Formats: sequence, structure tokens, C-alpha cells
Amino acid sequence: MNVTVWNEYSDYQKSGKTKEIYPDGIHNEIASFLRQTGIKARTAVLDENEDGLTDEILNNTDVLIWWGHRLHDSVSDRTVERIVQRVYMGMGIIFLHSAHMSKPFKRLMGTSCTLKYREADESERLWTVNPIHPIAKDVGEYIELEKEEMYGEFFDIPKPEELVFIGWFKGGEIFRSGVTYTRGYGKIFYFQPGHETYPIYKNTAIQKIIINAVNWAVPKTIFPLPECKNSKPLEKL
Amino acid sequence: MNVTVWNEYSDYQKSGKTKEIYPDGIHNEIASFLRQTGIKARTAVLDENEDGLTDEILNNTDVLIWWGHRLHDSVSDRTVERIVQRVYMGMGIIFLHSAHMSKPFKRLMGTSCTLKYREADESERLWTVNPIHPIAKDVGEYIELEKEEMYGEFFDIPKPEELVFIGWFKGGEIFRSGVTYTRGYGKIFYFQPGHETYPIYKNTAIQKIIINAVNWAVPKTIFPLPECKNSKPLEKL
Amino acid sequence: MNVTVWNEYSDYQKSGKTKEIYPDGIHNEIASFLRQTGIKARTAVLDENEDGLTDEILNNTDVLIWWGHRLHDSVSDRTVERIVQRVYMGMGIIFLHSAHMSKPFKRLMGTSCTLKYREADESERLWTVNPIHPIAKDVGEYIELEKEEMYGEFFDIPKPEELVFIGWFKGGEIFRSGVTYTRGYGKIFYFQPGHETYPIYKNTAIQKIIINAVNWAVPKTIFPLPECKNSKPLEKL
Amino acid sequence: MNVTVWNEYSDYQKSGKTKEIYPDGIHNEIASFLRQTGIKARTAVLDENEDGLTDEILNNTDVLIWWGHRLHDSVSDRTVERIVQRVYMGMGIIFLHSAHMSKPFKRLMGTSCTLKYREADESERLWTVNPIHPIAKDVGEYIELEKEEMYGEFFDIPKPEELVFIGWFKGGEIFRSGVTYTRGYGKIFYFQPGHETYPIYKNTAIQKIIINAVNWAVPKTIFPLPECKNSKPLEKL
Repeated sequence: MNVTVWNEYSDYQKSGKTKEIYPDGIHNEIASFLRQTGIKARTAVLDENEDGLTDEILNNTDVLIWWGHRLHDSVSDRTVERIVQRVYMGMGIIFLHSAHMSKPFKRLMGTSCTLKYREADESERLWTVNPIHPIAKDVGEYIELEKEEMYGEFFDIPKPEELVFIGWFKGGEIFRSGVTYTRGYGKIFYFQPGHETYPIYKNTAIQKIIINAVNWAVPKTIFPLPECKNSKPLEKL
Repeated sequence: MNVTVWNEYSDYQKSGKTKEIYPDGIHNEIASFLRQTGIKARTAVLDENEDGLTDEILNNTDVLIWWGHRLHDSVSDRTVERIVQRVYMGMGIIFLHSAHMSKPFKRLMGTSCTLKYREADESERLWTVNPIHPIAKDVGEYIELEKEEMYGEFFDIPKPEELVFIGWFKGGEIFRSGVTYTRGYGKIFYFQPGHETYPIYKNTAIQKIIINAVNWAVPKTIFPLPECKNSKPLEKL
Repeated sequence: MNVTVWNEYSDYQKSGKTKEIYPDGIHNEIASFLRQTGIKARTAVLDENEDGLTDEILNNTDVLIWWGHRLHDSVSDRTVERIVQRVYMGMGIIFLHSAHMSKPFKRLMGTSCTLKYREADESERLWTVNPIHPIAKDVGEYIELEKEEMYGEFFDIPKPEELVFIGWFKGGEIFRSGVTYTRGYGKIFYFQPGHETYPIYKNTAIQKIIINAVNWAVPKTIFPLPECKNSKPLEKL
Repeated sequence: MNVTVWNEYSDYQKSGKTKEIYPDGIHNEIASFLRQTGIKARTAVLDENEDGLTDEILNNTDVLIWWGHRLHDSVSDRTVERIVQRVYMGMGIIFLHSAHMSKPFKRLMGTSCTLKYREADESERLWTVNPIHPIAKDVGEYIELEKEEMYGEFFDIPKPEELVFIGWFKGGEIFRSGVTYTRGYGKIFYFQPGHETYPIYKNTAIQKIIINAVNWAVPKTIFPLPECKNSKPLEKL
């Protein structure tokens, strides 16, 4: 299994709090804990050739993990189209936190993907509402995050195929924090935690969920790109 | 309630079989049977200003019905964006037959929307599998169509929120023929029947379904366009 | 439309706090605010003939509202079967609060319907996560309840067809508080608020939701009881 | 993994066509092809102690396969309750063909589970509509059955969590032939093919689906029986 961890990794991540928490970037943090489970993980960032996601890289990616926030519009439409087509063929994709407004997520959802937010050092408790879902394996009833950016409803997403986690925020909001979809032959997981100024991806419970999600999203088969087909008559039964 | 019936209405519809069946075009046929139930229906075609769908028209449309086949790519991306935003605000939209490959449908679904097809004068029987759905009201167990283009699976759509009709084709295929979705605050119905060389929209049972779908899709409220909002702290409970 | 509001209405409701809040019982409180909207509402209680729900009453009920807590087992299996069959034929049914452990709810869900609870005067905020659902009409983003019994996950229910409300509890829990199902031709709404020692059903926002739910659950048609049918060959198409 | 294959295995199966096709009974046929894949499979029949399903057997069963037709009512309510409780704890269960009217299936679904049927030697073609579902692995676009009993809609089941297969029948009907559910911590698959007078379970494609379903339904964990819990206050975040 080959995982590619993509991060916009722009200036605001290379200084200040985010730099302190993730000296090598969020992408390397995630790749690192994935590798410890034996998963082959590489990283890609926006500044690289073709936004870091050439055909060759995508063709060798089983699951793509996406972290982006301020530079969504800097990802070219061509890159988005390549990603989407690869998802249709079976590549899994995991969108983290502010990736809800990324181009590929909005493209795959078909909605505005807007939500409410507040940066106020609020605590969050993530509740498992689908305890036998593979992504919730060994997670237990809930996870506590001491500080997280609040994300609140109404979250404008299509009806989730599966709702796995609901977030409780101390300030009074709830959020559909872990949701799955299928698009074409590819599996999609959106997971809310991960604001860049808190050490969310160092939390072992969060790591477990992302590892579970990778294992859940990995395709059994890569299919040809779906296309309309003029179908010959079937032999009569 | 204001319904706009859109049709690409290009040359191939203005001659031959389609012209014979629908002398004034598919759009006028549909608008006509809608009007007989007291619904205010107007028509719009591709050749008109801004693809027939100006802001003014869309702002006065509660439900948009879409018929397109060969000229999907001639609809401008700007028009598609206007339609999609209006759906997000609450406008209902009904996609008929080959509109499965239209730009707005693919944009709202987030999938390739591809399928199998065969033009072979095959009969179809449409089965109701959700008998209490408003769109199935008074439709009965099934509808028979003497001749229809075959549409077959795998139909690459997101998991339907509601599956209302399944089509049986004499040649041996089945198809998820009537499916609903929500995107933003807008309701969506895809309905498979309606090849341009058969008098499908003259069938009163098909008309009943489209009328039901219009009544189901009409918004109770038009909402502001969804956007991300920085949310103030809630008052403490 | 005829609504029957059922309450076990046993001794613990006829004294103490519940008596103070609802001098005539929870059932009469609910029937009363329904009547103010023009809905014909009657009440029924456990002590009456056949648990208050004779065939005649059920045959004249479009929507049944159920409140029970300590006497679930006192409802006879025969009554449960009559209710369930009437739901299969199209009667709507709304289960309130502790009715999650009632016999008819468990029978219709097929799960254990268990959950976590805590009586600790905690505040609740109910969030709308499906703003265009008819049951959420005019409810707004959230409702605040100053004090409510906490109900928490894991709530062992089948995957909801529609998730309309999620509850936030001050103590740290969340709950899938408003969920819908279909069984046979009947529509079902489970709604969490309503502990008997708080004046929940006097809250106008809660009343609005219950009124909305009644209007949503009312059958368009009462069908014959579903049965297996030996089907004659269809005429050939 | 331990699979138990249950069959009512009454007189009508011990003579005539069924005896010819399955000399040792449908249960042994199924157990046999499961064993060839390395799965540990035992059988159980109605005439045995406690309907063949003692606590000891159920406690050592990961997935239960159920075939029944004419003797549904001979299964005791106590046995049904034991099965249902085991499903709530995580045991997978697969209902085949006429098991749609079995007591455990109706108990877990909460609906009447009725349908239309016709015994007329009609051919069936089973279409995959969820090609990446584990139960559809390596099944391909469709399976052909030369002769099968027709099962038709309206099939009174709850909305499937996942619709995997749709059946096409030569006589003109369609059927939701492969559907999944969760109840408690247990996974459920209903699969329509398997009338006792046709050699359906000798078909290798059908065998593959049943093997896939067993692998899909096997629990990762057996949980305690769900119960309502008085929950202590959470530590403050």
C-alpha cells in the first residue's frame, strides 16, 4: 500500500506555532506515524512540480491524504481533475480539517462544504456513533482534544453514507466530524480534527483513526476510468 | 410555483422523429402538461441569451427541469455555476434521461455519472420500490413503456438518498431509474425515461411522476448562499 | 387528521414534579398544543381498555404519539402487535424521550434501543443538521433547553434514514436526538427531549417540532396490511 | 472463523427434487463449499435440541447462515431471542431466499418482510450495483441463473444500508436481491437466490457471493449485550 500525504505547506506553516509543533510540516508528521505501522508513505507539497501530484505519483498512490487551508485556490484545476479521476478509478482519499474547502473535496461532494468555525482554544470530545465501522476500530467511546478550532453546523455536505464520529465542542456546538462517501470506485473520509496551531496529529488516538481510515480506503482493485458504453444485446436467458 | 423547463433544443430535435413526436420541442411538451395542473411553467433553450438561464430567470425559478443530450459541452461553465448556486439556495432541479451527463448533474453529483446504453426499441417496466415517496404518489406498482432506450448499470452515481424507481428492460438489464439527492438546500431528482425518439413524455404515468417530482422539489424557503462563517461564542447555558 | 397521544400515565406522574408541571398529564399537554393548530387530537392511557388502544381507536388514528417510561412491560404484546400492524398500513408514529425502550419502538427498530443516560439537571442544545427537513421547518439553527436528562451514545438504533437533530449536552455528551425511519407504509420519528420532571413540552420550539413531525408523519393513504402474494405472470411487453 | 449453517430441513427437502439436487440437504451443500475455502463450518437443523441452536453453539458462531421456508413458525421464540441477542453482540447473520419470512429476519428488520413470488421456472440475472462492496468482490457485472423462483417488489424491508444486487426476472419483475443492515453490533445480509428445487447453491458465482458475505459479516469483536447505562459525569475538559 502506497500513501501520499499532501500539504499546501506554505509560509504560515514554516514559522510560529505550527513550526514549533511540526518542525518538518504536518505532512511529515502524518507520514511518519503511518510508516511506523509499516505503511509506505511519501509526502507531496504544493510548491512541487504539478502541485506535487504528477500522474506518476498519483498512479502509484492507493490513498491520498489532503491537508490544506489558505491556498486552496492555488491548486490548479488540472491537478484537481487528475485527482478526481484517480478517485473514480479507486484511489482512496482522506480530507483532514480545513480541507473541507479544498477544490478536490468540493468537486467530489458537489456541495458548498461550508460550515461555522471559531478559533478560541476550545476543548472537543469526539464521540463514536458507529462503533463497528473499521475506522472506529479500537477507538473506544470517545476521544478528548484539549484544544481545537471549533467547527459547527450547518455543515453543507451531502448526506453521509456513514456517520462515524460526532464532535462535541465546549462552547456549545456539535459537528459531523467523521463522515464517509464513495465516488466512482473510490472511498472518501472526511475527518474534522487538525487545526495547525494545536498538536492534534501527535495524539495517538487521532493517529489510530487516520491509520484505520487509510486501511479502510485502500482499493482492492484499480478500475478503468468509468465511461459511457454502448452495450451489445445480452445473450437471451 | 415557477417551473422553468430547459432543453438544448438543437437541430436534431427540429427534424425527423423527435419533430414528429414533439413538434414544439420536448420543453414545450413538458411545460404544457405542467400548466394543465395549474403550475406556472416557462421554457428556456440553449440558443437564448446566457444559455437561456439568466440570473433573472433563475431567481424566479423554483424548480428547473433539464433535458440535454448532444450539446452538454455547449453550456457555459458560468451558466453551470449560476445553476449550482441557485440549487444550493434551495431551487429544486429535475434531470431527465440523457441529462445524466449534463454539466450541472455531474457537478452536483461529484461522480462521472456514466452508464451503459443501447438503442434497440426495447420495452421497459418501471417498478416503484418506495411506494410512500411523494414522487410515487398514485403511480401504482409499475409503469410500462413500449419502447425506450436501454440504460444499464453500473450507473456511476453517489449512493442515492432515496431510490424510488428501478427500471426493468426486456433485453435483460435493470437500472436505478428514479433517485433523489439533496445538495445545499436544494432537492434533486434524476429520472431515466425520455429518449427523444419515443413519445415518453406523452405517457400520462410519466407525466404524473414529473408533476409529483416538481411538487416534491419545490423549496419551502430560498436561503442565502451557504458560506463559511466565523461564529461568535454562544451564550453560556 | 386524527392524532392520538398515548401516555402510560402511572402514579409517578400524578404527584410530585410531574404533576406540578403537567397537572393533567403529559398527554393532555401535548394534545392541547396540537389542538391549537387545528389538529384533532385525543388522548389514551395505559389504564384504559386494551391499554387505551382498541382497534377502533387505532383505525381512526393517523398519527400516534407515544410517551412511556417505567411501565413499558405493562403494555400487552397484543396491543403492540395491533400498533405495529397499523404502522405497516401507514399510520405515522412519534416516539418521545424514554419511549426509546417501549415495546413498539424496539419492535419496529429491531435493535436493543439502549443508550446512556444521566439525570443531573444538565442543559441541552439541539442542533438542526438537516435544515430543509419538514420536521425542522422554522426551527432555526438550534434550540436551548435549560435542563434536560442527558441521553448519550452509543444509541443502539438502526442507521437513521434521516438524521434531523443532534443534541449537545453540557456535561460533554452528544446524541442523535431526532431521527426518522419508515416501516411498511408508516413513517416514524424518534425525538429525545421530554423528561417528565422538566417542562420540556411547554417549550414552544419543542412544540413546533412535534407539530411538524405530526404533519410529516400523517399518511397520504392507508394501505392494506402487506402480505406475500403469489403473483400471476405479467402480460408480455 | 466459525460459521453455522442452519436449515429447517424438513420432510419436503428429504424427497423429490430437493433431495436429488442436495442429497445431504441445503445446509451441507453450503457448509461444504465454505469448508473448501478454509472456513470452519458446522450445520444445525430444526429437529435438533433447542432448534439446533443452543447457547453453546451460538456462542461459538461468528456467522450464522439461515435457510427456512415452510416451518418458520416451528422455530421457538426463545431460540429467536437467543439469535437476536447474539446478533446484537456482533454475530453476523446471512438470510437466504425464503428466510425473508423467518422469525429472526422479521424480528431484526421490524417490517413485514413480505414480497411477491411466482414459481414458473423463470431465468434471473443478478446485477451488481455496488461494485466495490466486499460482498461483490470478483463477482463481475452480473450473474445468470437459468431458473429461479421469481421474487418481486414491493419487498417490505427497511431502507437497505447498502444495496448490492438487483435481480432482473425474465417475466418482467425486478427485486432488491442483495441488501445489508446493521443491528446492534452485528452485520446482516439478505440474499434472494436459492429456491429449493433449483441447484442455485451449486452455482460457483452464488457460492462466491456467500463466501464474500461470510467474510464481510464476521465480527472483529464480540461486544457485551447492549444495555441502558446510568452514566457518571465525565471529567471536565
